[in-house]
Amino acid sequence: MSNVLKSSRPIIAITMGDPRGIGPEVIVKALAKIRRPSMGTPLVLGDAHLLSQIGQTLGLRLKVREVGEDFQEAPPGVLPVLSLSHFSLKTLSAAPPEETSRASFAYVEKAGEMALAGKVQAIVTAPVSKEAIYTAGIPFHGHTEYLAAISRAREFVMMLAGKCLKVALVTTHLPLRKVAQRLRPEKIQSVIEITAQGLQEWFLIKNPRIGVAAFNPHAGEGGLFGKEEITIRQAVRQTFEKGLAVAGPFPADTLFYRARKGEFDAVVCMYHDQGLIPLKLLHFDSAVNITLGLPFIRTSVDHGVAYDIAGRGLASSRSMEEAIRLAAKMARKKEIHKNNFLKLKSKNIN
Amino acid sequence: MSNVLKSSRPIIAITMGDPRGIGPEVIVKALAKIRRPSMGTPLVLGDAHLLSQIGQTLGLRLKVREVGEDFQEAPPGVLPVLSLSHFSLKTLSAAPPEETSRASFAYVEKAGEMALAGKVQAIVTAPVSKEAIYTAGIPFHGHTEYLAAISRAREFVMMLAGKCLKVALVTTHLPLRKVAQRLRPEKIQSVIEITAQGLQEWFLIKNPRIGVAAFNPHAGEGGLFGKEEITIRQAVRQTFEKGLAVAGPFPADTLFYRARKGEFDAVVCMYHDQGLIPLKLLHFDSAVNITLGLPFIRTSVDHGVAYDIAGRGLASSRSMEEAIRLAAKMARKKEIHKNNFLKLKSKNIN
Repeated sequence: MSNVLKSSRPIIAITMGDPRGIGPEVIVKALAKIRRPSMGTPLVLGDAHLLSQIGQTLGLRLKVREVGEDFQEAPPGVLPVLSLSHFSLKTLSAAPPEETSRASFAYVEKAGEMALAGKVQAIVTAPVSKEAIYTAGIPFHGHTEYLAAISRAREFVMMLAGKCLKVALVTTHLPLRKVAQRLRPEKIQSVIEITAQGLQEWFLIKNPRIGVAAFNPHAGEGGLFGKEEITIRQAVRQTFEKGLAVAGPFPADTLFYRARKGEFDAVVCMYHDQGLIPLKLLHFDSAVNITLGLPFIRTSVDHGVAYDIAGRGLASSRSMEEAIRLAAKMARKKEIHKNNFLKLKSKNIN
Repeated sequence: MSNVLKSSRPIIAITMGDPRGIGPEVIVKALAKIRRPSMGTPLVLGDAHLLSQIGQTLGLRLKVREVGEDFQEAPPGVLPVLSLSHFSLKTLSAAPPEETSRASFAYVEKAGEMALAGKVQAIVTAPVSKEAIYTAGIPFHGHTEYLAAISRAREFVMMLAGKCLKVALVTTHLPLRKVAQRLRPEKIQSVIEITAQGLQEWFLIKNPRIGVAAFNPHAGEGGLFGKEEITIRQAVRQTFEKGLAVAGPFPADTLFYRARKGEFDAVVCMYHDQGLIPLKLLHFDSAVNITLGLPFIRTSVDHGVAYDIAGRGLASSRSMEEAIRLAAKMARKKEIHKNNFLKLKSKNIN
């Protein structure tokens, strides 16, 4: 019975993030708005009392209910919380930073554990302060790195997805002058492959069309404006020969226009701003960050802890809403993909 | 009398470009469509016979009329051409490449001469083949370089302008790995100043607001992802202290969204794709290339000779139309700016 329920409505774990940041606020706001994502059941890993207080302060009609790890379903209007800390609006400002940092890590730790055990089908993360957690004595280098480590994922890819454009990044937070030397064919190849696999499994695109961006202006104009395109071309050829619908390197200045028009399902970008400039131009506050390459789904909001506006009711929950919706949709598609795969397998055996 | 006419309707010189490319076709198509730009009088420097034949082949109702250098006005429906070569559709394919190359250079040479003499108020250039002209023995490195040389402009800036976004480039056709070492404060400062001046004189924006893009992701995140922002900040401070409404460096991934929303009149970009990715995403075939820093107005189409589709009637004239319209508009504004300046001066003297 529990398996049937799970397969029809995946559970989406939402980590509350830093209790002092805008995470708790955007979570209650988002869930008051979407109430029940059509394709999944949300479960917040965080602080039941604090969330309840924030919901009341904001005047939201949302009943917080503490649940256990065996949680399956909640009636509409109820926000199920697996409570892992005990703050209140009163005690929060006086709490030592190590306490809030350890709590924000505990939410993520539990989410990872439950995802690996198959108890939740997706993780949505609210922002934490990496530095604060690290300072509290936990060797934490970011959500993505932590989740990759516990699931022994060798390679992972940061994808940003909006309605009309999806971009996957070969390099991320790196000085631009150092990007060229990091562009190795194996790395680019792996990003193309993980991107294709993610689009197949989580977006149900059978044969995803991937456009790969050039690094130099005019795609190097035959070597006149740089030679990195040779490396990129090599990776494109290798993945094309494996049967992927991949093409490039294309001049970056027209590629995103083409992708937006529907020519490609995703664009593989060589550096952070190459992908983020067009993405944020089209989807300023609605883009969702997806980690590809993990054994479970993980999305996150596209903003930080924003201590400066926390507790003032000013934060926009748009990105959180989109992150929850997309995670639920992906989890549902993943189920369909798995079922199709199993059917195909049993067919082949018979 | 002639001065009065000139000051009310500036003359826009349009160079025909390579006779074998799509230049002649997009010119007749564009001028058949806009017939008479409301703010200026077009004058083509090119080949009267060839243009007339192409117009007929395309079934356009446009009467080509040969005129001299003292040309002032033409009735509607008439395309005035200062004829500098004598090709025909029949002889064109058999003509030696040096002949068409020399002709395409002659159009530009004459346009520059007339602009410097004040006989035309703006130049719009159709595409030529740089390599072909160079091979024909003329030391030509491109329209911009040539026009800057004859007008002794020490510095010039490439700006691309669309309806919602204008970008000015600090570096252009350079391998991306070489950009960082070219970012000197004096260079960035000069681009900011020329951009501001261009917006004042040619777009009549009194106190143009200029946003300057960072080079690294997250604007370097305090030096963690690169240090080029120190150089950029220096240039911004220098120009700000001179009284310009300039700010930055801002993270590039959100800057273009802000500019599009109206926060800035133009964005100064550090490298080609940084500016061209957002520009072409918003204005794929309607962006106009403007050269700032010359003593006259110069716009150009945003495409090349396109030999592969030339002579087949397939070329889109959209970019040429926009280039002509914008040049005429800029010339008109330049007149107003000059008159205001003269009025102000005589007022101060009296």
